[in-house]
Amino acid sequence: MRQGNQTVAEYPRYAGDLNEGELLARIFPRLGSGKALLGPGDDAALLAAPDGRTVISIDTLVQDQDFRLAWPGGYRTTGYDVGWKCAAQNLSDINAMGAVPTSLVVSLTLPPKTLLTWVEDLADGLSAALRALGAEDCVVAGGDLGRGELLVVTAAVTGDLQGNDPVLRSGARPGDTLAVCGVLGHAAAGLALLDGGTDYALLGAAARTLTAAQSRPCPPLATGPAAARAGANAMMDISDGVVRDAGRLAAASGVRIDLDPQALEREAEPLAEVARSLGRNALDWVLGGGEDHGLLAAFGEGTALPRGFRRIGTVLEREAEAAHRPGQEARGSRGGDDAARSSGGGKSAGLITVGGRAPSAAGWDHFAG
Amino acid sequence: MRQGNQTVAEYPRYAGDLNEGELLARIFPRLGSGKALLGPGDDAALLAAPDGRTVISIDTLVQDQDFRLAWPGGYRTTGYDVGWKCAAQNLSDINAMGAVPTSLVVSLTLPPKTLLTWVEDLADGLSAALRALGAEDCVVAGGDLGRGELLVVTAAVTGDLQGNDPVLRSGARPGDTLAVCGVLGHAAAGLALLDGGTDYALLGAAARTLTAAQSRPCPPLATGPAAARAGANAMMDISDGVVRDAGRLAAASGVRIDLDPQALEREAEPLAEVARSLGRNALDWVLGGGEDHGLLAAFGEGTALPRGFRRIGTVLEREAEAAHRPGQEARGSRGGDDAARSSGGGKSAGLITVGGRAPSAAGWDHFAG
Repeated sequence: MRQGNQTVAEYPRYAGDLNEGELLARIFPRLGSGKALLGPGDDAALLAAPDGRTVISIDTLVQDQDFRLAWPGGYRTTGYDVGWKCAAQNLSDINAMGAVPTSLVVSLTLPPKTLLTWVEDLADGLSAALRALGAEDCVVAGGDLGRGELLVVTAAVTGDLQGNDPVLRSGARPGDTLAVCGVLGHAAAGLALLDGGTDYALLGAAARTLTAAQSRPCPPLATGPAAARAGANAMMDISDGVVRDAGRLAAASGVRIDLDPQALEREAEPLAEVARSLGRNALDWVLGGGEDHGLLAAFGEGTALPRGFRRIGTVLEREAEAAHRPGQEARGSRGGDDAARSSGGGKSAGLITVGGRAPSAAGWDHFAG
Repeated sequence: MRQGNQTVAEYPRYAGDLNEGELLARIFPRLGSGKALLGPGDDAALLAAPDGRTVISIDTLVQDQDFRLAWPGGYRTTGYDVGWKCAAQNLSDINAMGAVPTSLVVSLTLPPKTLLTWVEDLADGLSAALRALGAEDCVVAGGDLGRGELLVVTAAVTGDLQGNDPVLRSGARPGDTLAVCGVLGHAAAGLALLDGGTDYALLGAAARTLTAAQSRPCPPLATGPAAARAGANAMMDISDGVVRDAGRLAAASGVRIDLDPQALEREAEPLAEVARSLGRNALDWVLGGGEDHGLLAAFGEGTALPRGFRRIGTVLEREAEAAHRPGQEARGSRGGDDAARSSGGGKSAGLITVGGRAPSAAGWDHFAG
């Protein structure tokens, strides 16, 4: 975290020392000018939607749930981390549809004793993530500021399909290859390091790469549209662990999925040393670890996997018994029924095997967790 | 608040008793099916943007800041109230641009001990507000759910300009008539009633109308597009009080505004009795009260005011001294500079008079408040 030179009492130091307009004036210059048809300053912003459609999603980070301000090992979450992660997890949702991100609108709820430097860092982290992840054409088009006793950062994100069809969770077909892009389990390993009491100052470079995967995830943004162009049948972002998310994809598609144990072992290999040092199992992180924001996609037999994708399993026909369990066929419809697609609970249980057997970890659930 | 019959222990009672998917399955059926090209269930939703543009804004309600769960007079904020208010304040931002709302995406942060009936009520309130306020074509296209120690409800809202130009804050010109639509000060009077310790059970019908204006505001949705069609030069929603918001409009437009004392007295008249009973001044509520979500608009001389608008003042040329104060000319530009438009602080000080004199109340500021 940046250390400002603000010891003189008359200089504002905390968010609560400024009014809303003064605080916005600290934030907006850090976000770049961008290309919205109309940016911040009016009641709403105006974006171009060149193909007559807009992809939209929303995601929230809450203090003490999605991040800790101070971790047991001594690491202090910076505003930069939170801004980066807010951008990354939202951009990932657009990527997962095969679209290109076009804008963020961001709502900040700040305790009055939040340091101004922390808030400025947050704006810098947002902005840096857009550039570093390759979303240069994505603008911060507007926002909202308010007080609250907890730090809460919500962004809504829009995207442009550039005339293409969106890639849904529901399109996987028996015989498809299941593939991933981006890392698996790295953010979970980083969480274990930050949360486990290991002194952050003593961590080596490899371990710090993993804590950075937790604090500042790097969704592979160009690969979503590339997978769409390659003809992916189904796609989603891996935010809650590959077992849970593959279960959702299988439930939405009316299929089941067998994951390849050897492929998963390969994914676990880079995490093995840190896992040993913490007395943990790297494979659990690979199977159940959330927040990596890679992509999970199903490609038809014979489709060459786009650059960055690795095969991790096979889409199979659902057995008669499972196929007739109530609530599992409700796919392809829209609106209320689709809530079932998001279920991490019973609806997708039994749809995922690893080498034909039940998996050992079930992914992350915000409420059951 | 609805009283459920959930005393049997094995029935889930709190948000924390369900996983994310189960909780979503409680919420989505209450929101209606709607007309999104792709609704909830995938990583993002897909909306039509018929004229190739999308209006977007975001707004947050935080427990203990924007509402209290229990008020001193005994009123308990229902989930229905919060859902309604969330919809209303977001829809109002789209209305203020002269656009028609098309979608909401909603992020809920819920303490695990939130009653499920309260969450269901919230979904009902959201849905009811869309219908009651005339936004039937606005769909809840998606959302996000998470835990937190405070209730936080954020929605992003999109709108369709239907081929028209957006009406900005910056277009008011000397000679324009300043007009309002919707109520002024009613939500503030309601807040005073709820917050003042008056026993809610003993309030009469007129007072309850005012508390409802606070809990479930009714922005005049059709009038934004109507004002745009009538040729409004500038427009914004009145969320922080007419003095503060008129100051923002004046700052953005490079003008000053004189409010008409007689017109303001007329606005205060319906509040006079409640004000007397509380020992308060109704005019302070009219001038400074936020959260009514009416519209403030400037119309050119000779323009017939659209139905629902009342004249409350006149747009005047800014004096040379004020016009050259640093930071006040930065209008019409986009991005970082526009932060100044949102300033409730020094930037708009002195731009508003009432019958030629400084006003008595300065409106609401989330941080200075």
